[in-house]
Amino acid sequence: MKAVGICGSDVHFLKTLRLADFIVKEPIVIGHECAGIIEEVGSEVKNLVSGDRVALEPGISCWRCDRCREGRYNLCPDVKFFATPPVNGALANQVVHPADLCFKLPENMSLEEGAMCEPLSVAVHACRRANIGPETNVLIMGAGPIGLVTVLAARAFGAPKIGIVDVNDHRLSVAKDIGADETVKVSTNMQDIPEEVTKIQKAMVVGIDVSFDCAGVDKTMSTALNATRPGGKVILVGMGHPRMTVPLTPAAAREVDVLGVQRYKNTWPICLEFISSGKIDVKPLITHRFGFSQKEVEEAFETSALGGTAIKVMFNL
Amino acid sequence: MKAVGICGSDVHFLKTLRLADFIVKEPIVIGHECAGIIEEVGSEVKNLVSGDRVALEPGISCWRCDRCREGRYNLCPDVKFFATPPVNGALANQVVHPADLCFKLPENMSLEEGAMCEPLSVAVHACRRANIGPETNVLIMGAGPIGLVTVLAARAFGAPKIGIVDVNDHRLSVAKDIGADETVKVSTNMQDIPEEVTKIQKAMVVGIDVSFDCAGVDKTMSTALNATRPGGKVILVGMGHPRMTVPLTPAAAREVDVLGVQRYKNTWPICLEFISSGKIDVKPLITHRFGFSQKEVEEAFETSALGGTAIKVMFNL
Amino acid sequence: MKAVGICGSDVHFLKTLRLADFIVKEPIVIGHECAGIIEEVGSEVKNLVSGDRVALEPGISCWRCDRCREGRYNLCPDVKFFATPPVNGALANQVVHPADLCFKLPENMSLEEGAMCEPLSVAVHACRRANIGPETNVLIMGAGPIGLVTVLAARAFGAPKIGIVDVNDHRLSVAKDIGADETVKVSTNMQDIPEEVTKIQKAMVVGIDVSFDCAGVDKTMSTALNATRPGGKVILVGMGHPRMTVPLTPAAAREVDVLGVQRYKNTWPICLEFISSGKIDVKPLITHRFGFSQKEVEEAFETSALGGTAIKVMFNL
Amino acid sequence: MKAVGICGSDVHFLKTLRLADFIVKEPIVIGHECAGIIEEVGSEVKNLVSGDRVALEPGISCWRCDRCREGRYNLCPDVKFFATPPVNGALANQVVHPADLCFKLPENMSLEEGAMCEPLSVAVHACRRANIGPETNVLIMGAGPIGLVTVLAARAFGAPKIGIVDVNDHRLSVAKDIGADETVKVSTNMQDIPEEVTKIQKAMVVGIDVSFDCAGVDKTMSTALNATRPGGKVILVGMGHPRMTVPLTPAAAREVDVLGVQRYKNTWPICLEFISSGKIDVKPLITHRFGFSQKEVEEAFETSALGGTAIKVMFNL
Repeated sequence: MKAVGICGSDVHFLKTLRLADFIVKEPIVIGHECAGIIEEVGSEVKNLVSGDRVALEPGISCWRCDRCREGRYNLCPDVKFFATPPVNGALANQVVHPADLCFKLPENMSLEEGAMCEPLSVAVHACRRANIGPETNVLIMGAGPIGLVTVLAARAFGAPKIGIVDVNDHRLSVAKDIGADETVKVSTNMQDIPEEVTKIQKAMVVGIDVSFDCAGVDKTMSTALNATRPGGKVILVGMGHPRMTVPLTPAAAREVDVLGVQRYKNTWPICLEFISSGKIDVKPLITHRFGFSQKEVEEAFETSALGGTAIKVMFNL
Repeated sequence: MKAVGICGSDVHFLKTLRLADFIVKEPIVIGHECAGIIEEVGSEVKNLVSGDRVALEPGISCWRCDRCREGRYNLCPDVKFFATPPVNGALANQVVHPADLCFKLPENMSLEEGAMCEPLSVAVHACRRANIGPETNVLIMGAGPIGLVTVLAARAFGAPKIGIVDVNDHRLSVAKDIGADETVKVSTNMQDIPEEVTKIQKAMVVGIDVSFDCAGVDKTMSTALNATRPGGKVILVGMGHPRMTVPLTPAAAREVDVLGVQRYKNTWPICLEFISSGKIDVKPLITHRFGFSQKEVEEAFETSALGGTAIKVMFNL
Repeated sequence: MKAVGICGSDVHFLKTLRLADFIVKEPIVIGHECAGIIEEVGSEVKNLVSGDRVALEPGISCWRCDRCREGRYNLCPDVKFFATPPVNGALANQVVHPADLCFKLPENMSLEEGAMCEPLSVAVHACRRANIGPETNVLIMGAGPIGLVTVLAARAFGAPKIGIVDVNDHRLSVAKDIGADETVKVSTNMQDIPEEVTKIQKAMVVGIDVSFDCAGVDKTMSTALNATRPGGKVILVGMGHPRMTVPLTPAAAREVDVLGVQRYKNTWPICLEFISSGKIDVKPLITHRFGFSQKEVEEAFETSALGGTAIKVMFNL
Repeated sequence: MKAVGICGSDVHFLKTLRLADFIVKEPIVIGHECAGIIEEVGSEVKNLVSGDRVALEPGISCWRCDRCREGRYNLCPDVKFFATPPVNGALANQVVHPADLCFKLPENMSLEEGAMCEPLSVAVHACRRANIGPETNVLIMGAGPIGLVTVLAARAFGAPKIGIVDVNDHRLSVAKDIGADETVKVSTNMQDIPEEVTKIQKAMVVGIDVSFDCAGVDKTMSTALNATRPGGKVILVGMGHPRMTVPLTPAAAREVDVLGVQRYKNTWPICLEFISSGKIDVKPLITHRFGFSQKEVEEAFETSALGGTAIKVMFNL
């Protein structure tokens, strides 16, 4: 392993020893945004040789269940996924992983760009579920790491207009720098939703075909449901609140559908294409880099947890 | 007009003079589930002649907006729809209506069966959005009029197994009579959801591919979201609560999508086919019939409002 | 192995030692429509025990290639398929096969009904590709074994009207017996196409939404392309002529799409459901039964090759 | 009318007085690629005023038939289309046309760019039918006007790699100039297909997900069918040969689907967006310009008919 990014879920596990229904009962290695160099391959492996630089897709699905067989392997109930108890993660010197989940990096891509394929995959999968193309105008709620990779992915899928909404000026300015067309600052106050929806729609000018809720809290979801045009879609990407109080019925009456995303499937090849062709530049999102020493590891997680100007914190030696 | 059914929305307008954002400011004729006999046709009408028995599709869309032009005319913002203020409805002796929204009844169909095409259309549109077929096992939350026509439509679309859930024994027994495979009685208590989900899933045996929430309240929606299999769909048909508190995030994390339905489009031909071929029998749902006298009209609305054993109350002379 | 059906491809291999690009160079076991009884299972197999009666899906896909990973495992270039050189088939006393491709038969299904899941799967896959449902009127060109299972599958998927076309009166009468609504006898003469198309459309009354060409020769394909309504589909199932001379351009100008079918995927569960629920009865198609003795084997293949009243010839001891 | 392009079909009508099933019996105005300036609007028209520069969508559909109502108005059997006998076309000083088929040009677009929306619409509709995006590698057969606008549209829809094939070096060099990644010169000889397919696949490196046949003759279609990857699509755009002799069966056995295109629907807004945003530059395709004098008109049609270096010949005063 040569480059491993820190995800919010890693921080969450570290601080609380749990995430959703997953509880850490035994010591576990975390980390799942990763790239490295092949040391050794099995005798039947033909696509890789020792020394190859690769990005790793972290989940090993069963390929026998109904979901796997119908092509939705991201919904496999028996998936073994890095850093999901009791499966160990990738923040290690060495891991053993199936060859067909190791994707060789093009020469013009760095290992840390390889590690960025993982968060980018979440955005790519979300864009695919939303069927983003040159005819879909996009609103993104939340300019954290996932909101920002969604800006990049939506643009790469051809979205003609991308607006993004956050409470934080710095994040909005980063979003603008990486390509968002419109930025709208909002409050955390539920009462402001009606006037903020008007403000967002005015800033967008065109109808909002698809909204991505990359925060996943009552306010962002309510705003997304109200702002999206009849017949549009809201993609629920962020997982802030498990239970939500939202105006689901008026949205349903306009056939604004709510689609979820569970990780990703078949995304590494397109991520490599996007990054190596220059359609997507993930480098501006990597704001901090640390080594693997005990001290640096602690510092890295603190930096990620604090937020501030940190977007993606990367272990990269 | 010869047969007009009473819909919950008619009762709601009558009692409160409003429904969602629509407010009754001037006296208005209500009623939109209707069939009648052609008295006169325009000079360019070729598909109908005086004396033809017809079922009426109640909404006149603009055919110029983006939604109409892309084939989703049910989302037309300029639709003129029976009994939606300020447009008058169909509970009248005569109405003027476009010929292409008047569908000639096959000889073996009665006028009241013609009027039933309207509520059935809601279910047909919901089944189409859900892509119901012989590989989709269906759960229906709520055994009111819309839940019951959804049983009929889901069966006609080929659903191999249909379960239905309600708080009312009588409604569940009607559902069973018209073809539901499994009925599950539940409480109105939110705390019972986890054990009721288990009970429902046990009754269904197979995974629930699609749930229709035909009540649209916190409890039914929460139950539907939790009971549906990963990768399945929840169709929000009923409109009980505008704002809902529901476990949207865990459902999204299993890619259980929430799709709304706004009325229907292009449904009359298939409704006529379903009823005239005998694939669907709507007659058991018509429990009460009234004439057009002042006294009977009042009685009819009272009967419908009371619920009890009333499912569909029909004006039919 | 307890029941094995004879397919046209088996006869073709036997007579010519080749089929399409596959050439028989070494002695090979043929047969791929099969069911049997489990003798022994591997230590990790949990879904089956010795003595279980099972139907076998004949193709073992790689689960690593792009096609497998996207859920179209029937297009896997590395599939190992019964009786496709150099892979041996199922007309044997014993075969070793992956447990997840062995589907336990419901108690009310016989082993030969289990073997019939294979040809039925072709029809099910074709119906899925065509999106057959209660709103699709269907035309079937050719009333051989595949045309006949397509009648059964299209009905089970809800097709309201099914017409079938052949040159042979006996086959048409079988089609009628198993549920075709309209039968049209045609010639083998290309010149007759225009008048036959008129005759077919008149017999169908309604527009033809989907045509299945289960013969796959110039005349059947030309007829299907011309008879199908604008915006409809032609599914090319039969493989009579590799190169075809057909009016593709006028069909394309009406957006009549031509979709191919390569075997099937994920079809055994629905076939078991169709047969065990009684929605489909495959028994009338099994016209001849033979044992496994040398003499009977020869006789069986002769019977199948001759055609005549033989539809499906089955080895069934 | 201020700008009118000449289409191959115009030339065909002029020379032969017929096209497909349409026969010119009375004198008729031709031309359907057009833009102009509004002189006068009806009293209910709100989106346009006198003096507005507009591009015209040429077909007036009925909005009552099944195809119109389901959103496929390009398949309307009663469409009234410019220059389709007996309907007059647009090569005139003035035409009367419905306001909702007149699309106001953004300030940065010229009238002749407005006229180019028509041929571009064919390509846009073809790309939509093919679902072109950043994951679809594209092959285009034929580098005539339609092949070239297909290069532009496929790139705008995000196609990562576009190869184009023709017999003419000049056309291939134009294709390269406007953005094709790979150009392959071929013969008109059917015998060369196998080796040309190999050459094309080698040039593309990646699998061909979608092929557009913009010539529509035996050789281009055969090449497209053979070159496309299993599970891919061939879009038949050109209409060279009504009857084709092609290897349809082996393509069907790889589930390479053949989809047709009939004109376009709802394409003007996206064409305006593509051109005005600079995603598409149609100007290099306009090679010749003529005025409306008798002499110039004759010369214009001769220029278009001759081909040579002429791509799009435009009347533009």
